[in-house]
Amino acid sequence: MSTIRQSRYAPDTSSGRYIAPLLKELRGNPLLWLLVFVPLVLLAQIWKPEAHTQLFALSIAAIVPLAALLSRATESVAVRTGDTVGGLLNATLGNLTELLIALAALRAGQYVLVKASIAGAIVTNSLFMLGASFLLGGLKHHLQRYNRESARMQAGLLFLATIAMLIPSVLAEADMRTGSAKLTNVLSVGLSVLLIVIYALWLVHSLKTHRELFVSEAHADAAESEWPLAVALITLAGVTVLVALVSEVFVESVQQAATTLGLSPAFVGFIVVALVGAAAEMTAAFSAARTNRLDLSVGIALGSAVQIALFVAPVLVLFSYVIGPTPMDLEFWRGAVGMMIIATMTAALLTNTGRSDWFIGALVVAVYVIFAMTLYLLPPRIG
Amino acid sequence: MSTIRQSRYAPDTSSGRYIAPLLKELRGNPLLWLLVFVPLVLLAQIWKPEAHTQLFALSIAAIVPLAALLSRATESVAVRTGDTVGGLLNATLGNLTELLIALAALRAGQYVLVKASIAGAIVTNSLFMLGASFLLGGLKHHLQRYNRESARMQAGLLFLATIAMLIPSVLAEADMRTGSAKLTNVLSVGLSVLLIVIYALWLVHSLKTHRELFVSEAHADAAESEWPLAVALITLAGVTVLVALVSEVFVESVQQAATTLGLSPAFVGFIVVALVGAAAEMTAAFSAARTNRLDLSVGIALGSAVQIALFVAPVLVLFSYVIGPTPMDLEFWRGAVGMMIIATMTAALLTNTGRSDWFIGALVVAVYVIFAMTLYLLPPRIG
Amino acid sequence: MSTIRQSRYAPDTSSGRYIAPLLKELRGNPLLWLLVFVPLVLLAQIWKPEAHTQLFALSIAAIVPLAALLSRATESVAVRTGDTVGGLLNATLGNLTELLIALAALRAGQYVLVKASIAGAIVTNSLFMLGASFLLGGLKHHLQRYNRESARMQAGLLFLATIAMLIPSVLAEADMRTGSAKLTNVLSVGLSVLLIVIYALWLVHSLKTHRELFVSEAHADAAESEWPLAVALITLAGVTVLVALVSEVFVESVQQAATTLGLSPAFVGFIVVALVGAAAEMTAAFSAARTNRLDLSVGIALGSAVQIALFVAPVLVLFSYVIGPTPMDLEFWRGAVGMMIIATMTAALLTNTGRSDWFIGALVVAVYVIFAMTLYLLPPRIG
Repeated sequence: MSTIRQSRYAPDTSSGRYIAPLLKELRGNPLLWLLVFVPLVLLAQIWKPEAHTQLFALSIAAIVPLAALLSRATESVAVRTGDTVGGLLNATLGNLTELLIALAALRAGQYVLVKASIAGAIVTNSLFMLGASFLLGGLKHHLQRYNRESARMQAGLLFLATIAMLIPSVLAEADMRTGSAKLTNVLSVGLSVLLIVIYALWLVHSLKTHRELFVSEAHADAAESEWPLAVALITLAGVTVLVALVSEVFVESVQQAATTLGLSPAFVGFIVVALVGAAAEMTAAFSAARTNRLDLSVGIALGSAVQIALFVAPVLVLFSYVIGPTPMDLEFWRGAVGMMIIATMTAALLTNTGRSDWFIGALVVAVYVIFAMTLYLLPPRIG
Repeated sequence: MSTIRQSRYAPDTSSGRYIAPLLKELRGNPLLWLLVFVPLVLLAQIWKPEAHTQLFALSIAAIVPLAALLSRATESVAVRTGDTVGGLLNATLGNLTELLIALAALRAGQYVLVKASIAGAIVTNSLFMLGASFLLGGLKHHLQRYNRESARMQAGLLFLATIAMLIPSVLAEADMRTGSAKLTNVLSVGLSVLLIVIYALWLVHSLKTHRELFVSEAHADAAESEWPLAVALITLAGVTVLVALVSEVFVESVQQAATTLGLSPAFVGFIVVALVGAAAEMTAAFSAARTNRLDLSVGIALGSAVQIALFVAPVLVLFSYVIGPTPMDLEFWRGAVGMMIIATMTAALLTNTGRSDWFIGALVVAVYVIFAMTLYLLPPRIG
Repeated sequence: MSTIRQSRYAPDTSSGRYIAPLLKELRGNPLLWLLVFVPLVLLAQIWKPEAHTQLFALSIAAIVPLAALLSRATESVAVRTGDTVGGLLNATLGNLTELLIALAALRAGQYVLVKASIAGAIVTNSLFMLGASFLLGGLKHHLQRYNRESARMQAGLLFLATIAMLIPSVLAEADMRTGSAKLTNVLSVGLSVLLIVIYALWLVHSLKTHRELFVSEAHADAAESEWPLAVALITLAGVTVLVALVSEVFVESVQQAATTLGLSPAFVGFIVVALVGAAAEMTAAFSAARTNRLDLSVGIALGSAVQIALFVAPVLVLFSYVIGPTPMDLEFWRGAVGMMIIATMTAALLTNTGRSDWFIGALVVAVYVIFAMTLYLLPPRIG
């Protein structure tokens, strides 16, 4: 047996060794066929920079497969580098697509879009991705169970982040009254540092001191054949550059395209950008739910939301002092804060049993549909 | 044995067969003696249409026993038609009294009263009916247990409905800014359809796919001697007409009576109408709690609140396009939304153990007393 | 054995019998060495009444050890008078320091300070004291357990009190519109009576009818050598007078000192006064957590918060009609109400498992740090 296996892998010594896993991936995952749109969008941007709606559609079609490739590469590096380093990598690069899109928007000074996409990602992950996983899993399995300890802790982290984002929006009024614009900025930096510290402590807690509490969800998908480290690292670097380039196009075209399509900016940032950024994780979460590995689904959905709230968002605030035209704060549109609070409460209330069926999923998705419906109907000036 | 039984029922072939159960009911239930007020109020309405305060008092005295008869008849039809059809009947006609009162107010264009009575019914059922059941049951039994799975799910449904009612009231401001009154209406129709869909899914879930989760509360009172189907159907039809007639009187007189009695409209809609509409269910819930069938009490209290929030309220919004002078939306007075949120949170937090004693009941009732006290003190212009 | 013991206590017949326990206490508890500041602050108040900042610092240094002595004396009286009377004593005098400081501020008509210190005490006890206990206990013990039934009930009580404090602040707007200032006052008296009634019922529930539910936390520290009843009573009386005197100095100097130190009044009332008032209980809660008696820590932290919310605050409202220049109401600054709601939600969500580790503690403390940071940055006019 082992001889046969070795001989099977024997040809992998040439350069084919690096390309073969990618080709195999391409054959197995139809989502990746969308990669053809990557060169298309970059060329179109040069030839027709004024065709905003087409560029918007093309860049979405290009980001989705790149994001899938990116998270696949991160996964592979993580598995190859051992549990702790791997866990750290997943925890920092797991939402690289969202981070790259937001950085592009940050450099363009489009803070409304940055904030809408942050809030939207949190709400989309903790409501739609979680709810649809429950629903899809529940339609196949009568009753599903998952580690509620982990879900509870992540709901707690989301709760903390939501409070941190609520305070500046409440204080903004006080700010206006005193006329000093500094207060919200100072507070936002303080809150960002606090969130990153808590995120770091959370990693220590879940990867080091109390890892036994979260054991069931760790690398439940390690069974997949992983890429060699070199392939994974090169893919990671190359795709990162591509996502950054396509994100530029996306951010430049989104505003104009929204106006043309009659969509409010709030709807685009909250729903469209968030769904595009999370598409790759969603396919993973949904397929895990269908195969009754609900721990993995819940881990991806809530873990992603936590990462964006406690790592991506505060990092963007701190980065804005370096790369943005002016400092960005943590003051969100009131409606966005309200939706984050409701999403967190829903996740906290519904996950505290550790059980799910299709109806619980439908209920969570319904909350998301209410938000999407509302944002779609919002007049363009709000949000 | 079986011969004796048959002979006992043998005389029931004449018309007495239809009237006997009603007479037996009248003897056994002193609440029904109030039925004497039904002809009184209808006559008084013709003779003294300007005596608003007296008509108000008479119509309350007449609605209470009619509501009791109505829910008794619905129960009987439900039991005779089998579990699924019966469950559906209970789920749609269980709050027929509230629906008929609200329809009368809707036809009269009194949307403030309609909304106050919807919000009041949700709050009254999920706080007062639930809390008083815990309190009355707890004073007799040291510690009581009930199916928390069912309570949790119903609290989740209430949470969803509360969010659906929160959004339009938040958006109303945006509406004012843009000057278009259409936004809230379009959104309200969308939300109403969504709530009815979720309610239908909930019936599928609790009556079909996952009925085993909710088993303990189903038809726990089937032991009562049920009426023949014909009696039940005729009673249902006849009493529905009577409730509709008395509701007209009630709705016409309530505004004037409130002014005379010095009550704010918010107090009347929220507290008085809600208590009148729920009187019949309350007597059932309280007597179940005293006899230690707390599952039934919780089922009546939360089930009623869910039905009003996810079925009666959206049906009224959709009906308003047919029978109302102008379309009604789901935009509630902010204070009403706040009270619904607090009521839902209280029900969710306190029922997640599946245990109760007298003090938990006192706590829930105290929240209701805070609301009633506040509404009583409100200046007439608010609400 | 018993002979030896008796002979050991035999010399305690002289006056040394009364002073010896106090001296022993002084030797064992370095916190009490701060008692030297008591005469200092009283003398300084006569000699240098205009040195506000120094008087402020001295009065803080004097109140902390007095508070420790006060709660020690209350404990001793409670243990000597049996379970029910002792429980009642603890329940009414357990936050005597907070009550005395608030009474001094009430007499001076400083209602903003009174309210800030009430809200601050609730938030400090239920977030900082609870969180730091979890954190300190968790750094020593991997996983700690406590009676969640008791924590749940106290979170429920806090929830009720928070609602009672939310309503008047919401209604204040309505009040302004109608121009009558009476509404909030009438409502506040009604709510205060309701809160005291519920607090009394809670004592009946936890000390009489359902004491078996809360058994693990009762007198877990009875092992300490208790003072004779006479010593305890005399200490209680004497220290009460001293705390009252020092509180006068504290309240007179705090406003000026805050201005000099550049602290906002909201920060002083919410954070400084609350930490000073709770210092004694904190040392007890933290040492209990370190020795793995987490039930005691949770009992002190949440019990204190409950007592201030349902007993101290309403008593102050009712007292204001006797000793204050004008009646005080329960209308709090909106931000304070928001923080109380968040603190209550945090306590409710995190204590419903009955388990804790260091990270849960860090999370709760982080919420408190967010509040403190915000209050510190607040412009002086807000709060």
